Amino acid sequence: MIKLVVLDVDGTLTDKNRLISTNAIKYIRNGVKKNVMFSLISGNVIPVMFALQTFVGINGPVFAENGGIMLYKDQIKKFFDKTKAEEFLEYISKKSSVKPVFTNVWRETSAAFNMNDSDEHYVSNEAKKHDLYIVNSKFTWHVMDKNQNKAYAVNYMKEQFKLNYNEILVVGDSDNDITMFNLSVNKACPANATDTIKNKSDYVSKHRYGNEIGDILNYYKIL
Amino acid sequence: MIKLVVLDVDGTLTDKNRLISTNAIKYIRNGVKKNVMFSLISGNVIPVMFALQTFVGINGPVFAENGGIMLYKDQIKKFFDKTKAEEFLEYISKKSSVKPVFTNVWRETSAAFNMNDSDEHYVSNEAKKHDLYIVNSKFTWHVMDKNQNKAYAVNYMKEQFKLNYNEILVVGDSDNDITMFNLSVNKACPANATDTIKNKSDYVSKHRYGNEIGDILNYYKIL
Repeated sequence: MIKLVVLDVDGTLTDKNRLISTNAIKYIRNGVKKNVMFSLISGNVIPVMFALQTFVGINGPVFAENGGIMLYKDQIKKFFDKTKAEEFLEYISKKSSVKPVFTNVWRETSAAFNMNDSDEHYVSNEAKKHDLYIVNSKFTWHVMDKNQNKAYAVNYMKEQFKLNYNEILVVGDSDNDITMFNLSVNKACPANATDTIKNKSDYVSKHRYGNEIGDILNYYKIL
Repeated sequence: MIKLVVLDVDGTLTDKNRLISTNAIKYIRNGVKKNVMFSLISGNVIPVMFALQTFVGINGPVFAENGGIMLYKDQIKKFFDKTKAEEFLEYISKKSSVKPVFTNVWRETSAAFNMNDSDEHYVSNEAKKHDLYIVNSKFTWHVMDKNQNKAYAVNYMKEQFKLNYNEILVVGDSDNDITMFNLSVNKACPANATDTIKNKSDYVSKHRYGNEIGDILNYYKIL
């Protein structure tokens, strides 16, 4: 029986323009009424996740910065530090097309940027040399600690709430979801997911951009 | 003809528990498609307004902290300073039941707090002595500059976008909306609005908590 549903945000609850699916909101609220715990994990910043928690009605923890920081019951918990990521961003901005994004003012455990596609290989290698890694959440690039990822956040909740992997369902669509799709949890994705995510999924919905949430919750008998 | 629709958030787009109305989201998106500009003004913090702008699809400026700070096209503009408000909060916390709220870390032009009802008169008077004022947005109290209010934000947009008051529609439900309801703009409110707001409104919808948005936009022939 699923006790915890972990959702990615961009591309999983939203469309390509980041507009949130009103159907997804309705189905999440129905799931919350059934006393299933819902959690969000995103590359976005913690006050944005606070907004989603509040306005959508998420009853579990929300994680920002790919799992680096959590908000639950009005308490913020930081798992990583941003000093190295910020120093790296300053360094690499001078050597490549990398440009920081304005939401960095609200980041506490990572740094975000845009760059030309052609710089990806170079910047990724430079990050590794600094014990950091970069990941693309479709809307922006993120640099952070090599151990900071969505699997870290899922494992944290597994311990906190004393769950087994088979009581956890994860839903995501893109590269920065892969670490949690490598755990022995239940995995589902929308039709717009990358091939890698689809191949790792137990259930691939025919619906997309948030409209898959009702279908997936039904498949796992949550609704 | 209405060219700008200015919406309050809590109680106007949301219910008492701050859950956003999926109907309100749909009707706002329909209005945006008709090339009407939508703006939000709230007592909340700017990254939360950034989240609403992004996920709902607001095409105009969003204002946080009752008009003290604006986000438009990824640019943040601050109109007031928080130094005096923060100093006042520290001072008054020692003399009353006033307790700061955790979202203050994201505030830039005001400070927010909770207190016992019985302290309202005392804290309000103390604020005035410091050229500040306090206002209740139903979920929390705010202290800020005496000139910082929603009318300030509406007037700023009127100038920026070269509008007349009769091309602006404001929708709100509570005390911190009164200043914009005192302008000679078009005014509408949900059924859950306070009596003061209802009395100042040109149109009072029979619907509430976000479900009035479609009704109001139809009344003003925006949809």
